[in-house]
Amino acid sequence: MIVIMNASCSDSDIENVFAFLHKHHLEGHLSRGIERTVIGVLGSPVPAGYAGIAGSIDSTIEDTLIGLAGVEDVFRVSKPYKLASREFHPENTVIEISAACVDSGTVKIGGEDVVMMAGPCTVETEAQLMTAAQAVREAGAVILRGGAFKPSTSPYGFRGMGEEGLKLLTKARDEFGMAIVTEVLTPADVALVSEYADILQIGTRNMQNYMLLDEVGRGSKPIMLKRGMSATLEEWLLAAEYILAQGNPHVMLCERGIRTFEKATRNTMDISAIPLVKKLSHLPIIADPSQGTGRRDIVGAMSLAAIASGVDGLLIEVHPNPEEALKDGAQSLRIEQFQDLMPQAVMVAQACNRQFIRPARYSSTAV
Amino acid sequence: MIVIMNASCSDSDIENVFAFLHKHHLEGHLSRGIERTVIGVLGSPVPAGYAGIAGSIDSTIEDTLIGLAGVEDVFRVSKPYKLASREFHPENTVIEISAACVDSGTVKIGGEDVVMMAGPCTVETEAQLMTAAQAVREAGAVILRGGAFKPSTSPYGFRGMGEEGLKLLTKARDEFGMAIVTEVLTPADVALVSEYADILQIGTRNMQNYMLLDEVGRGSKPIMLKRGMSATLEEWLLAAEYILAQGNPHVMLCERGIRTFEKATRNTMDISAIPLVKKLSHLPIIADPSQGTGRRDIVGAMSLAAIASGVDGLLIEVHPNPEEALKDGAQSLRIEQFQDLMPQAVMVAQACNRQFIRPARYSSTAV
Amino acid sequence: MIVIMNASCSDSDIENVFAFLHKHHLEGHLSRGIERTVIGVLGSPVPAGYAGIAGSIDSTIEDTLIGLAGVEDVFRVSKPYKLASREFHPENTVIEISAACVDSGTVKIGGEDVVMMAGPCTVETEAQLMTAAQAVREAGAVILRGGAFKPSTSPYGFRGMGEEGLKLLTKARDEFGMAIVTEVLTPADVALVSEYADILQIGTRNMQNYMLLDEVGRGSKPIMLKRGMSATLEEWLLAAEYILAQGNPHVMLCERGIRTFEKATRNTMDISAIPLVKKLSHLPIIADPSQGTGRRDIVGAMSLAAIASGVDGLLIEVHPNPEEALKDGAQSLRIEQFQDLMPQAVMVAQACNRQFIRPARYSSTAV
Amino acid sequence: MIVIMNASCSDSDIENVFAFLHKHHLEGHLSRGIERTVIGVLGSPVPAGYAGIAGSIDSTIEDTLIGLAGVEDVFRVSKPYKLASREFHPENTVIEISAACVDSGTVKIGGEDVVMMAGPCTVETEAQLMTAAQAVREAGAVILRGGAFKPSTSPYGFRGMGEEGLKLLTKARDEFGMAIVTEVLTPADVALVSEYADILQIGTRNMQNYMLLDEVGRGSKPIMLKRGMSATLEEWLLAAEYILAQGNPHVMLCERGIRTFEKATRNTMDISAIPLVKKLSHLPIIADPSQGTGRRDIVGAMSLAAIASGVDGLLIEVHPNPEEALKDGAQSLRIEQFQDLMPQAVMVAQACNRQFIRPARYSSTAV
Repeated sequence: MIVIMNASCSDSDIENVFAFLHKHHLEGHLSRGIERTVIGVLGSPVPAGYAGIAGSIDSTIEDTLIGLAGVEDVFRVSKPYKLASREFHPENTVIEISAACVDSGTVKIGGEDVVMMAGPCTVETEAQLMTAAQAVREAGAVILRGGAFKPSTSPYGFRGMGEEGLKLLTKARDEFGMAIVTEVLTPADVALVSEYADILQIGTRNMQNYMLLDEVGRGSKPIMLKRGMSATLEEWLLAAEYILAQGNPHVMLCERGIRTFEKATRNTMDISAIPLVKKLSHLPIIADPSQGTGRRDIVGAMSLAAIASGVDGLLIEVHPNPEEALKDGAQSLRIEQFQDLMPQAVMVAQACNRQFIRPARYSSTAV
Repeated sequence: MIVIMNASCSDSDIENVFAFLHKHHLEGHLSRGIERTVIGVLGSPVPAGYAGIAGSIDSTIEDTLIGLAGVEDVFRVSKPYKLASREFHPENTVIEISAACVDSGTVKIGGEDVVMMAGPCTVETEAQLMTAAQAVREAGAVILRGGAFKPSTSPYGFRGMGEEGLKLLTKARDEFGMAIVTEVLTPADVALVSEYADILQIGTRNMQNYMLLDEVGRGSKPIMLKRGMSATLEEWLLAAEYILAQGNPHVMLCERGIRTFEKATRNTMDISAIPLVKKLSHLPIIADPSQGTGRRDIVGAMSLAAIASGVDGLLIEVHPNPEEALKDGAQSLRIEQFQDLMPQAVMVAQACNRQFIRPARYSSTAV
Repeated sequence: MIVIMNASCSDSDIENVFAFLHKHHLEGHLSRGIERTVIGVLGSPVPAGYAGIAGSIDSTIEDTLIGLAGVEDVFRVSKPYKLASREFHPENTVIEISAACVDSGTVKIGGEDVVMMAGPCTVETEAQLMTAAQAVREAGAVILRGGAFKPSTSPYGFRGMGEEGLKLLTKARDEFGMAIVTEVLTPADVALVSEYADILQIGTRNMQNYMLLDEVGRGSKPIMLKRGMSATLEEWLLAAEYILAQGNPHVMLCERGIRTFEKATRNTMDISAIPLVKKLSHLPIIADPSQGTGRRDIVGAMSLAAIASGVDGLLIEVHPNPEEALKDGAQSLRIEQFQDLMPQAVMVAQACNRQFIRPARYSSTAV
Repeated sequence: MIVIMNASCSDSDIENVFAFLHKHHLEGHLSRGIERTVIGVLGSPVPAGYAGIAGSIDSTIEDTLIGLAGVEDVFRVSKPYKLASREFHPENTVIEISAACVDSGTVKIGGEDVVMMAGPCTVETEAQLMTAAQAVREAGAVILRGGAFKPSTSPYGFRGMGEEGLKLLTKARDEFGMAIVTEVLTPADVALVSEYADILQIGTRNMQNYMLLDEVGRGSKPIMLKRGMSATLEEWLLAAEYILAQGNPHVMLCERGIRTFEKATRNTMDISAIPLVKKLSHLPIIADPSQGTGRRDIVGAMSLAAIASGVDGLLIEVHPNPEEALKDGAQSLRIEQFQDLMPQAVMVAQACNRQFIRPARYSSTAV
């Protein structure tokens, strides 16, 4: 940490800062410049083991320092997340998911290959789900998305089928061999959803629902952590750190658009987050161009952009009949649109020296 | 709802929209202008009783319409919240809280008078809490704030004393006769916190934690719902609607600053939300200038601004020794600062024809 | 400046940074911490005289340092503006404007008293302007606002009467003794507008129109510099620095709302900018609640909030008949509304120990 | 336009709205719904010829309507820009620029092929410019960028070489056959810069400098209009409309990042603007990943993303020695980095069925 004293600080202000640092077992180093006096703080306030939640005083120290008399500003020198940072973990995390539809039986996320996850926003009926699942698998998806517990901005909106939806997802997995990603909304549901799902999704509104992060961190299911609507990368990686700190290393991040002033789209998909996450962290990064834009007509362009920028996977909403969708119909691709997109995606990946993980050719008896 | 067709829409696009409306029992009304064809939709998609969560299809219809071929835009004509709107409930909601420190025994929030809530950000020790409580009561506060369960952006930050903190709050209530407001973080804790608190606070990160909103909505404790970090007023009122829809009418809103590009403050306190909420809704509105700015040195000015703009109450962090605070020391007023602020606040309220609710003079034997 | 090296920087990276500093006549000071190596830079890159535009290398050095190999981040320790900062100029700047309508003949902005500036958004007709001017003076305004050159988001919008409008403003000054504030859009118009106006307004879209800032800086007319739509305080004060650096010390700042996600208002008025500007700078700060909200129905509440937070003056749009306004009718107060607001404003100012500068009672023969 | 009356509007409120519409020669159409009364407005308030600046009343009517008694909201049905919209001009605008370095002698922007523009942020010395120009041409650029008049946030920053810089650009054009793009800052400089440049750049801070837009609109030089720092697409297209309305049809748009809360990048490059501009407008769209990110280390990834999303050209900062740059060194690619990027860009374009316009092989005698 670097403490910047203001121009009119007194000697006793400086002494107070040193006294404060000593009380917290930190060492200060004084530099008097022409315009400002600066105190460099040695030692990291996060304890070596960061064993649990109770111990550390990191952000507190920073917060309190900035309120001391004579202090103008405090800068952190090291990143506040450790387990999520590439600096402390240089190799890519590769998450392995069992999926009968691929020949090896395992989908690897975060490695050399790109993975396609697709399916309906929300599980609505068996027919809808099975139609979508078969179509996206045949086109090239290996993971099936579908919401059973859905957040809704309005209390009068559709909030999903609940466990019934989870059972339908299992049925689709049995039939098509795809792995399942689905959202969990609250700590009390984590055990239930974990019974059915291969990947638990934490939605954008829950990125800072710390009790939920703790709960999924205590399990071992892979987690897809969506970025909060106006979260910085640092806040997002700190949310991932919550899960990692509880012991679950299987975390992938999912960029799904941030809030900006633009009204032509529901969100502004932040493609730059993709190369930045790859630099800052070792965790896999997925892109969701459906939520990321809210507009079916640019989902294709944004999917290709995400691949070109280095994404590890895509999460795309596909609905057999978007006009009948109970949720987010406007952003769901039609099946034909997904069928058109897939070969373009393959081409762009190849141009970037990457391959899509391919499912085996589907045959209803083979699985 | 108003559906705007794009300039190149075909007759069959228009027919499809009408077919879609009919399927949802809605009536359309066609107007062909020079540049655009417009379809007015009669009937409200929210059912009259909005009895529960499962029934309605409001936002779905809008979402899906905007994805139909030939549709350029869809505008909602009525507000998506009902129970929270002043239109459907013209009189102010006044929430009554028992508090021995006022002569009447009851604090009314949302009526003619202004209420001061103050205390430490976080309960740290008995001495800290009792010192702060006595000081803020003597200066004029009638409700004591203090966090026992605290959200923390970093998993290594302090997360509060938990039930121990709640017990200390009860002790302060017994001693000083003040009502207690404290945060609840997750549905599973609602019953526990309700045993101790007079007002349950829902924090900014949980404004769209719908399972938590549902849970507090099923109780009858007064709720203070903080605005989400980048929430619009509509989203905030929809979050209040969640609580109201479950049957709990005792909801007050709390403006606590929104995220902007400004770096000189932690958040930008949106004073305009105060008069706007009074127009759009009947619910009481509180202002939190401590979180709203993150800087002790402008908490006073922003408190006065909030009063002048018509706020129903203030929530202010006060710490006996901010340098020792375990959380948010930089934004906590010192006791002397709070003592200086209170008479100024009283003056500004009087200039606006309002009074602060006054506690009886404190004497340790009187309560 | 503080240069933070990344964890994996090499010794030659550090040597390169020192070489770079030496080339720019700056001294570095190395501190090796456990996680990071930090280089403190002594000496200020802004030359003592900041004589002109060509000389300095301030932001360049910062920009370039951050791109050197091994550098993770660079923090500035001192503020990038000098002439605008309170640190270098502790006493308030008080700007004196001649105005026959006050007994002393001079309005002082930035001192103990508060000043009311009011009038129509745009000069439309002589009758409109004279009616508005008389009404706002009789109610208590001493400075008359009115746009003759108007920016318009659409090329098809009304762009003002030009010099004709300036002549009408002069006529109103002659009749009512008020000083005139009006906008100038481009360097080529500065001489013309200066002939007629007492205060030149730089609008929000021109806050970073540096050629215009330079031009008004070369004159001596008082300048009202509006905040850019999404400008930080630092950027705003840097824009003021442009004017001050050219030699014109008569700069006042005007908060007029920033862009946020809120849709219920045109802009979000940032009341916290008022106490912050008073801390960071010695320049007077004015508030424009008409542009700041875009809604007539909350202009009153926001005016009172601005006063309570310590503003030096208000700039309010008043129109004799807002339904006939050629621009911004929705945010203009009716005359009766302004007449109602003024005594409330006086009360709140008094509660804060300030007075409004009062015009003498108007009589058509007295001036 | 659609006028939404509020729930409690009176009959006389409705009559007033109709009276207002009639005064402006517009026809209203009343629909009474269950919750709201709606008035559809027929006729477009923008006159058929939109001949000039004085005539139209478009945004005024909307602004004033929203302030009438009983009116809750007003929605525009048609887009406020015409000349810039694809609806009114379905075919792509293709801008032709003479450039000796391509075999045909002409670079076409906005057509089938993709164009690479590269060069230093700022012209600093002849050696720097010539080295950069030769290197980027040899790697595949056909247009040379370089600033001679530079905006600077600080008045103490470097503001460019002025006409000297323009002369050096001309020298580079003579030597390498590349076309030149350079910024113009103020109306008075348009004639001068037009003598030297092939494309005039309007920078982000000047997107709403209407006097400058008018001035370049009166000429015939191709214009590259950068997006304002927090501009919506609609505001950006309205700024283009200013230029088009003056008679200059040669306008290309340039996405250069928007301001968001993210601190890891200088700006957030909005890749979704690329496919959206292609849908909303016929004008060519260019991407500037250097300004768009501010970080050399992700310029490559974002360039590829822009191509995959359908961009018509890239504008990339390249410096022979970024450590020596007088401006924006941190975001400038080194020559080797640009040489590495170009073949990857070609591959991604091919995967999307597009080609880069290629310069002839450079030989100092051939041009």
